[in-house]
Amino acid sequence: MTKKPLILVTNDDGITAPGIRALIDVMKDLGDVLVVAPDSPQSATGHAITINNTLYLNKVSKPNAAVTEYSCSGTPVDSVKFAVVEILKRKPDLLVSGINHGSNSSINVIYSGTMSAAVEGGIEGIPSVGFSLLDYDWNADFEQVKPFVKKIALEVLQKGVPDGTVLNVNFPKLKQKDIKGIRICRQAKAIWQEKFDKRSTPQGKDYYWLTGEFVNLEHGEDTDEWALQNGYVSVVPVQFDMTAHHAIPQLNTWNL
Amino acid sequence: MTKKPLILVTNDDGITAPGIRALIDVMKDLGDVLVVAPDSPQSATGHAITINNTLYLNKVSKPNAAVTEYSCSGTPVDSVKFAVVEILKRKPDLLVSGINHGSNSSINVIYSGTMSAAVEGGIEGIPSVGFSLLDYDWNADFEQVKPFVKKIALEVLQKGVPDGTVLNVNFPKLKQKDIKGIRICRQAKAIWQEKFDKRSTPQGKDYYWLTGEFVNLEHGEDTDEWALQNGYVSVVPVQFDMTAHHAIPQLNTWNL
Repeated sequence: MTKKPLILVTNDDGITAPGIRALIDVMKDLGDVLVVAPDSPQSATGHAITINNTLYLNKVSKPNAAVTEYSCSGTPVDSVKFAVVEILKRKPDLLVSGINHGSNSSINVIYSGTMSAAVEGGIEGIPSVGFSLLDYDWNADFEQVKPFVKKIALEVLQKGVPDGTVLNVNFPKLKQKDIKGIRICRQAKAIWQEKFDKRSTPQGKDYYWLTGEFVNLEHGEDTDEWALQNGYVSVVPVQFDMTAHHAIPQLNTWNL
Repeated sequence: MTKKPLILVTNDDGITAPGIRALIDVMKDLGDVLVVAPDSPQSATGHAITINNTLYLNKVSKPNAAVTEYSCSGTPVDSVKFAVVEILKRKPDLLVSGINHGSNSSINVIYSGTMSAAVEGGIEGIPSVGFSLLDYDWNADFEQVKPFVKKIALEVLQKGVPDGTVLNVNFPKLKQKDIKGIRICRQAKAIWQEKFDKRSTPQGKDYYWLTGEFVNLEHGEDTDEWALQNGYVSVVPVQFDMTAHHAIPQLNTWNL
């Protein structure tokens, strides 16, 4: 690639999150960077878009800043749409989302705003990657994973991603020297066992907090959960054709 | 099945929407019905869950009503979690979501709150179906599709759904007599070509409305778009293992 690549950066923790700052740091060495990210945390927003509300877009970087940045009042997916439709003059060569504060491995991919932004990029034909670190701490140590972010981004800039997919990359919470490498994985079967924490308002009205415990239901060495528990970076190719093609013949035997 | 089936009903247009009323009408002849649905419209919320805000749950049916109904301040997925974790004593035999006011065929499945509620049911091991009618009108004629809803629900109560899938059912906007039948389909490849409609507040600040045009990128007779355009009800089995298994060998050749 002779021309400097154009890289779109977004996330779901909001534009001020340390995770997106780490991602911008890596990307600005690889190409021209545009940041469009939510103006407030949007964790667990899934593939939500804003159609019943107005949207605001604000340029937050200074006029001569090395990286142009916009904040958006909507969701991660809204941010990607704003970048592609309203701001950029050509399709980016790469979309990166994250680095998320917390895991998006296994079933979390379904709830994740970080990954939905990447999926939106994929739908729009942009090679896209979501990055997440297994550390929910606002001050998580993103320095440790920067070399892996760079390696994966360079590979995608060179090769693209397989047709109809985006990459879901998760990092274990380890020092760089203790990370054993990168593994291509499948999504482990897992669930959240939820609890609702019931409380009362000062006025005596019941309300709830959604909480839960993550339960991994399988332990195959080809799963993302296994990789992460064993010190590897997990890379899962995620598709947005949600058809269960293998189930079609079975359903065709139904009496409908 | 000798025992009366237990049926959970939800949607994303909110508990007062005519679409969910039609669905309840059909289901109350098939089993014991619990309704838990958002207290306000939640279209296009995707698989969002509420973790940074409090949640309210209100019983809205009268004490001796035939059907017990709760409204929830959260998303469709929150509603399913409330029903399963907080209200029901046993796992339902069927979850139905809808009937959505508007299409959830092809790529819309990704954005849809209706389908995310069904997917959440699937993740929790409940045979689950999302129903949508290709008519955005609040006063759409749901009577026309009730016989098809009943037929599909009875089949799922008898047979379950294929492992790891939920069903995405879409109805064409036609009179019952003009609907040609039910077809098992795959998700058509399609995109939304978005536009942002830029306006100014009375105070002179720019804001946007997200709008767009649906573009079907393929016309195979095995797709949901083809079925709907040709007068059939489309049924797509949707999976929540989002791994692109076919892409794993290709990624394993990468230099990571």
